[in-house]
Amino acid sequence: MIEANTTSPDRTTCANALRVLAMDAVQAANSGHPGMPMGMADIAEALWRHHLRHDPADPGWIDRDRFVLSNGHGSMLLYALLHLSGYDLPMEELKRFRQLHSRTPGHPELGLTPGVETTTGPLGQGLANAVGMALAEKLLAAEFNRPGHCIIDHRTYVFLGDGCLMEGISHEACSLAGTWGLNKLVAFYDDNGISIDGDVSGWFGDDTPARFEAYGWTVVRQVDGHESAALDRAIGIAHAADKPVLICCRTTIGRGSPNRAGSAEVHGSPLGDEEIAKTRAALGWSEKAFVMPEPIRRAWSAVECGAVVHGAWRERLDDYARAHPALAAELLRRCSKSPQLGRATETALAAACEAAESARATVATRKASQDVLQRLGPGTPELLGGSADLTGSNLTDWAGHRPLLAKGTGNHIHYGVREFGMAAVMNGIALHGGFRPFGGTFLAFSDYARNGVRMSALMKLPVVYVFTHDSIGLGEDGPTHQPVEHASSLRLIPGVDVWRPADATETAVSWREAMRRTDGPSCLLLSRQALPHAGDATPRLEAIARGAYVLRRSHDERVVLLASGSELAVAVAAARLLAEQGVEARIVSVPCLDVFERQDAAYRCETIPRHLPRIAVEAGSTGLWWKFVGEDGDVVGIDRFGDSAPATALFKLFGIGADMVAARAMALVQRSDRTLCNVERMN
Amino acid sequence: MIEANTTSPDRTTCANALRVLAMDAVQAANSGHPGMPMGMADIAEALWRHHLRHDPADPGWIDRDRFVLSNGHGSMLLYALLHLSGYDLPMEELKRFRQLHSRTPGHPELGLTPGVETTTGPLGQGLANAVGMALAEKLLAAEFNRPGHCIIDHRTYVFLGDGCLMEGISHEACSLAGTWGLNKLVAFYDDNGISIDGDVSGWFGDDTPARFEAYGWTVVRQVDGHESAALDRAIGIAHAADKPVLICCRTTIGRGSPNRAGSAEVHGSPLGDEEIAKTRAALGWSEKAFVMPEPIRRAWSAVECGAVVHGAWRERLDDYARAHPALAAELLRRCSKSPQLGRATETALAAACEAAESARATVATRKASQDVLQRLGPGTPELLGGSADLTGSNLTDWAGHRPLLAKGTGNHIHYGVREFGMAAVMNGIALHGGFRPFGGTFLAFSDYARNGVRMSALMKLPVVYVFTHDSIGLGEDGPTHQPVEHASSLRLIPGVDVWRPADATETAVSWREAMRRTDGPSCLLLSRQALPHAGDATPRLEAIARGAYVLRRSHDERVVLLASGSELAVAVAAARLLAEQGVEARIVSVPCLDVFERQDAAYRCETIPRHLPRIAVEAGSTGLWWKFVGEDGDVVGIDRFGDSAPATALFKLFGIGADMVAARAMALVQRSDRTLCNVERMN
Repeated sequence: MIEANTTSPDRTTCANALRVLAMDAVQAANSGHPGMPMGMADIAEALWRHHLRHDPADPGWIDRDRFVLSNGHGSMLLYALLHLSGYDLPMEELKRFRQLHSRTPGHPELGLTPGVETTTGPLGQGLANAVGMALAEKLLAAEFNRPGHCIIDHRTYVFLGDGCLMEGISHEACSLAGTWGLNKLVAFYDDNGISIDGDVSGWFGDDTPARFEAYGWTVVRQVDGHESAALDRAIGIAHAADKPVLICCRTTIGRGSPNRAGSAEVHGSPLGDEEIAKTRAALGWSEKAFVMPEPIRRAWSAVECGAVVHGAWRERLDDYARAHPALAAELLRRCSKSPQLGRATETALAAACEAAESARATVATRKASQDVLQRLGPGTPELLGGSADLTGSNLTDWAGHRPLLAKGTGNHIHYGVREFGMAAVMNGIALHGGFRPFGGTFLAFSDYARNGVRMSALMKLPVVYVFTHDSIGLGEDGPTHQPVEHASSLRLIPGVDVWRPADATETAVSWREAMRRTDGPSCLLLSRQALPHAGDATPRLEAIARGAYVLRRSHDERVVLLASGSELAVAVAAARLLAEQGVEARIVSVPCLDVFERQDAAYRCETIPRHLPRIAVEAGSTGLWWKFVGEDGDVVGIDRFGDSAPATALFKLFGIGADMVAARAMALVQRSDRTLCNVERMN
Repeated sequence: MIEANTTSPDRTTCANALRVLAMDAVQAANSGHPGMPMGMADIAEALWRHHLRHDPADPGWIDRDRFVLSNGHGSMLLYALLHLSGYDLPMEELKRFRQLHSRTPGHPELGLTPGVETTTGPLGQGLANAVGMALAEKLLAAEFNRPGHCIIDHRTYVFLGDGCLMEGISHEACSLAGTWGLNKLVAFYDDNGISIDGDVSGWFGDDTPARFEAYGWTVVRQVDGHESAALDRAIGIAHAADKPVLICCRTTIGRGSPNRAGSAEVHGSPLGDEEIAKTRAALGWSEKAFVMPEPIRRAWSAVECGAVVHGAWRERLDDYARAHPALAAELLRRCSKSPQLGRATETALAAACEAAESARATVATRKASQDVLQRLGPGTPELLGGSADLTGSNLTDWAGHRPLLAKGTGNHIHYGVREFGMAAVMNGIALHGGFRPFGGTFLAFSDYARNGVRMSALMKLPVVYVFTHDSIGLGEDGPTHQPVEHASSLRLIPGVDVWRPADATETAVSWREAMRRTDGPSCLLLSRQALPHAGDATPRLEAIARGAYVLRRSHDERVVLLASGSELAVAVAAARLLAEQGVEARIVSVPCLDVFERQDAAYRCETIPRHLPRIAVEAGSTGLWWKFVGEDGDVVGIDRFGDSAPATALFKLFGIGADMVAARAMALVQRSDRTLCNVERMN
């Protein structure tokens, strides 16, 4: 069958090619997951060789079908598919599976491997990404297609396993997909009855088809995941459905392995040389590891077919561009790899910054954020906002927002009470392209979304998180709703820019920087309560963008006060008290520690001089501030849970006030003076 | 009807008492959520006045029914219920709703208010806590009840809203409840069709009854949530069911308010004086705010009835104690407010520590943890372990473990791939009493469970989290699975003790301290890879418990090396390299920064002396370490995402090795020497 001959290999043989590549690569790495690729090989063959519309020569083609491997531990399945289909992923890379700096990492990683649409591994999130992609497709199609010009029209396919379905995020995302009627989303459930701990019946008793029907999905039940014709039929049903589709495929994990198939053991361990030899024999596969007969290569190659479908689309695009030149240009701008902001967007951002700085208003930064959106919205059609059921609190809406409800379209998404789902759906929207997603919730509930924020950062997606009610300042709702450690713990995630603006101007600049950012997410931590304008003659609009800047300096500074967000006003008031006692203080506003740490050493040292005693004020965890104040410095913050009371009572209770800061700063100054005296005495 | 007369007020009037108290308290606070209490008042009346078995005089009665308000923003409903039922919550406290140090905080808080069973507010978690409570009841009943002696036999009731049902955790917890067949769990769904953003149909299209039937629940559909007889019937059905029960109650949010009922507006804002007056009129309620007519008080009081049912139970307990004295004593020990560890447990912990210290084995700390469990398990029947589908990786099982599968019992829970659900279910188990829950997953996926860990801390629950695969040391699975910021970000949560043991001995001591802890959770961060015994003559077993200790000191120390977990061995090797270059180093092992920070200043200064240059090594975020090394110190760590490769290649790539640490330590020493010279020259 696999000898070079003129007839094409049969479908099972093509699927076996995936099985063999997966088991051999896992064996070579001596680590990895052969079970899923061997179990889903026939499904993959059916989808990739017979239905998927893609062009291996151009993984960035904007109207390609999207394929998401939500059960990302089966990465070798995807690498085998990409390799055989003709993507730029040579066999050498498959041999280097899971080795340093290979293009075949343990789990699929966006940006490393051509054809990988999203980074997966943390279970359930790939599925939610796919929901975001399918939504983006739908919205983009509604916005750009014209009668006779169907320029955006592709599907999103997902592979997923029991693990994805047990995770809560699968509920959040699939409920939304059903409500939104995402009929171009097709999910293949690898129903093999096995998870790492064994037979899932002991801990996973769901009637999954009934569950998905309850979400408003079309469910294709009891498909034999090893029978190609049945799979084709199921995919046919899916393509005709007017709802998202779950195809439930009964499979055997590790199919092909005579002794390991159907066992938990095959999930995450190499088969071993002996079992691999037996598997080869059972599959009738005579080739050595990493040798692929030419007929199989030919049968798998999607290069020619990809060129044809892509070529046809290019022609449609040309027609479209002739009929609707402005629309076509806008579509291409929005969907380019690193989309530039439109001129109207840049103008709006600049105007928002200027307006905030000149208005000098006392305003909650969440409201200031809404003011920015009000300017940004009209000229930024790619902006796709939303909130996890806190629209009126997060103030993520604006006068021209069009709510996306049920099966409609819009530019503001009611995600419902689904923080994690929102984050992962936003990641999917950003991955798809064409939109700049942002979404809001209370900062305390960033916890729920946390791994989604991490995935935004890992994938370098410019998602904007609007986290309002940013400290004990939220008041009466109490410790469950009051962030304490959240600002700092978000800062710890590599690649996340955490902005905690102190006034309307800093808020506008934060938005400007978040919108300009192309290589990662930004979190805007915004106050519920009104904050005074930090008002000063110093031109701040560029200084703020450096993450920290001197708000006020004097010729005889004896102490430096660092502060972020609502505590900048506290620092300003403390400086006034200190001045009354004859001590001049420098005030440094720190809207974004992450950005500040990327500045050159000269700027950092000039802004926060080491020769002066330093004290930081932030209504949250103190731990990260010691790096900036030194161990002779001081940090006024909160290292315990909050309390339920009006905000003013809480700031008093927690000692976050001008009196306290001034007193502790004065103590620093006096200690420093004594040390100085001692040194002078020594001389 | 509400005049003092001899007839008892009708049920609607009793429910209206809750409505009025809620709207008045929210108005007095000028903040809060009147909508839910007014909407669920009739349901609360039906349950609390006619079915709930509880004793207001003893909120700690171990066989009481549990009541969980998962939609915790409706806290005033619960406070009104507790007040009227006769708990120690006087009207004065209701008047002080949401004020500083009142017993009526914005959301229900465990420990503040008698009768509050769990802290709720973060949506979905109360429901998951309830699942944990119902599981604990079932397991405790199976363990302690004897023929003729039904000593543990109570129900768990939950109120929940649309928000709880949208959250992913509701999927995780309710899937488990169905699989486990928790037939004494009864949930009341406040199906009012409204969430904060408005009519939920735009973002919540689930067929919730079908969804819950898919989980294996009994669903009572379309109950009129304002009709007492219908509610009684539904509760009757629930009591007869052999599965967990969801009672779907159609309600009107803010019921009673002529102009606000049924609107999103009434969810989270005071009604205002005018609307309150209209509501009073509509309800026929003539009393002033916070005045409760005596007949209504009498109708509501559960004091007498509570004394009767509790008294009857006490008699049953006496019979039980006569028949099974040892069992009764053990039950009371396990269910006491602050359970003491049994002697066998203390002995096992001591033996585990001694054995690890004398074996001097090179072993993965996850394996060392399993060795502790092996000793701990047999004599610690309250130990209730588990893993989120990573049992064989987390090594949370032991030879005597009995897996809890489907509807059975056991002492090790297969939670499936449900990290957040596991955390919140463990919180529920701990809240119920009788068990010491612990559960495992990969440290990277602590993100998924994060707000559950936070709730353990906020409620001071001694839950133990076994987080294995604690750094880039996990190797090939790559950046999605490699924790970088996780150790530090868990440390930031107030009240969590994060242990990162360096060897088997430190692992055993971590377990000992975690088991001894009664006032909060502990996280054990354990390595996948083998770690050498830190072996030293110094007796360590008590030193480790202080969070940081001097592993090795010398008479001529010129630098201090701080390290945790797998990096302690790196520090030891670096010290050897430094010694070869004539520089003696102190080595400080830091298994738990949180505990170390609670030590007295003298111990802290003696352990990490400020006069010496200091360098910290940890394969993770550097930010928190600067407090301990000072700004003249250095931190060797990782502030970017990991990579997919074998662990040894990664430690090299990230510069976490003895060479690098020694070189950077030497640079510190030389810089310090120069500074010293300068000072001496000055003199």
